[in-house]
Amino acid sequence: MTKCKSISERQLIWRISKILGDIVNDDCAAIDIDDSQFVVTTDMLHRETDFPEIMTPWQIGWMVVSVNLSDIAAMGAEPAGLLIAAGLAPEIDLSFIDELFTGLKDCALAFGTRILGGDIDTSRELTLTGCAFGFVEKDLILRRIGARRGDLLCTTGYLGTAGAGLYAINQADFKNEYIKYLLEPKPKLKEGRALAHSRSVTSMMDNSDGLARSICDLSEVNHIGFVIQEESLPIPHEIVEMVGYEKALEFALSAGGDFELLFTVEPDSLEAAMKACDLKVIGYVVDKGLWMERNGNKRKIVPVGYEHKFKLSN
Amino acid sequence: MTKCKSISERQLIWRISKILGDIVNDDCAAIDIDDSQFVVTTDMLHRETDFPEIMTPWQIGWMVVSVNLSDIAAMGAEPAGLLIAAGLAPEIDLSFIDELFTGLKDCALAFGTRILGGDIDTSRELTLTGCAFGFVEKDLILRRIGARRGDLLCTTGYLGTAGAGLYAINQADFKNEYIKYLLEPKPKLKEGRALAHSRSVTSMMDNSDGLARSICDLSEVNHIGFVIQEESLPIPHEIVEMVGYEKALEFALSAGGDFELLFTVEPDSLEAAMKACDLKVIGYVVDKGLWMERNGNKRKIVPVGYEHKFKLSN
Repeated sequence: MTKCKSISERQLIWRISKILGDIVNDDCAAIDIDDSQFVVTTDMLHRETDFPEIMTPWQIGWMVVSVNLSDIAAMGAEPAGLLIAAGLAPEIDLSFIDELFTGLKDCALAFGTRILGGDIDTSRELTLTGCAFGFVEKDLILRRIGARRGDLLCTTGYLGTAGAGLYAINQADFKNEYIKYLLEPKPKLKEGRALAHSRSVTSMMDNSDGLARSICDLSEVNHIGFVIQEESLPIPHEIVEMVGYEKALEFALSAGGDFELLFTVEPDSLEAAMKACDLKVIGYVVDKGLWMERNGNKRKIVPVGYEHKFKLSN
Repeated sequence: MTKCKSISERQLIWRISKILGDIVNDDCAAIDIDDSQFVVTTDMLHRETDFPEIMTPWQIGWMVVSVNLSDIAAMGAEPAGLLIAAGLAPEIDLSFIDELFTGLKDCALAFGTRILGGDIDTSRELTLTGCAFGFVEKDLILRRIGARRGDLLCTTGYLGTAGAGLYAINQADFKNEYIKYLLEPKPKLKEGRALAHSRSVTSMMDNSDGLARSICDLSEVNHIGFVIQEESLPIPHEIVEMVGYEKALEFALSAGGDFELLFTVEPDSLEAAMKACDLKVIGYVVDKGLWMERNGNKRKIVPVGYEHKFKLSN
């Protein structure tokens, strides 16, 4: 018998997709309805795997809604609501549940939507599955597919902040400002909508698994490659001061948890995209390969062992 | 600190609904879009709590899709797809995963819809959250609210079959035909759609928590009561032969897992409802109280301790 752990998460997803057939590799599934597309996504989170020990119940709630809404943002869609399925242990305190659901509610309201219902089940380990749905005009929907050679690669916000937050937790540096970036991510819904309306974007996804994993996904879907311009990466200098440059770069590439939008635009449309939201151009599309460029020198970006880890090699 | 287990599941749901605000007590959440309503539901299932030991992986998959589609059926809606979030242990066999996802796929296809995507997470206990969505014309949507005094109470199919299946498993009577009713439930989508189109139904839900729990829910939402006519209950005589009459009645009232549609119709519309699907009239709406009527004698239907258990008392 072959165990699940003997293959990678991506191999498992391919295997399952092959069984199910016709699974589109996007942040949301999309369905046609008249002039709109209905988009829907689900994310399951578990106590042990997904929530650092120090998270408050309120932050756990916030995060569950946030990661689901980030997928809605990545399609350029307007959220229409969420459902929450919660597996709760009988031993859990009611005050924990109150705070948890307040966090779920607060995050939904903060981003202009709400929780419409859900399901309660009994589970030893705290398990929360969010399902978010929304709508986007058919001609504005943003998908992972669409990037072309010569397009510019752009990102919203900063990179490596969540990685810095996790590092701070592991160092018991609990007052570090980046912990909040990790534990209370903000879905980029406004930016996603504005970019969709700007009609300047050729492909988009969120970078929740880290920049390297994300460009790897975009390159596979589009049969293209990327050059990242190392000097242009928006890594806060406070993080470099905190952990050194190489570690900060590793956080940006591989740590995940940043929940920014990663997207491509044609050079002619860059001005329109820049009017839509704050963005940084961090690279460009090439025929193939994933590259990190610094001072005109290119290093390959290659995956190592664990799913979302990547390294640079000559 | 008050523990979660110190209150009932329903008290917990009320508590959470109060925090979230404006939760409508229906089988699905519904959202207006033009002339349609978009309906969406989620159900989380766990290995220990929800899947009897003897279930095959294929049956587990089938059941997850089935219970979610049953909620779509209860709104009179047409399914548009499902998402599946799966929490899988690293030690699980790949052949188990293959069969599980084949079961998920087969059930979706059997009922004219498909699985559009989902999420994979790591979890010690097998955890599966389905999210099903669909559409129904705005003027045809069927809700729990709407039943009025004098309406007839109706059900599709048989009652107590899943309870009989669970009983057979506990008796190690593994060839018993009712085990299949328990482990491979069939959502009544065709019946739900036909009833919606018949415009004869005043309120509807599925009876997945048992007949007693379901009429209790309908009575609360509608501020009414029900009289069940005991002789008219569609309990298969094979079940009565198997476990005796009182136990068979208990299965129908409290065992749950039948996944039939329970609905009310005005007496004038009964003919239209009967043209839409096979149904049994099993009682009628009164001002208040839940009653079991046999030979003109009425007994009260009252909840006992555990959530879905009810008993009859004079």
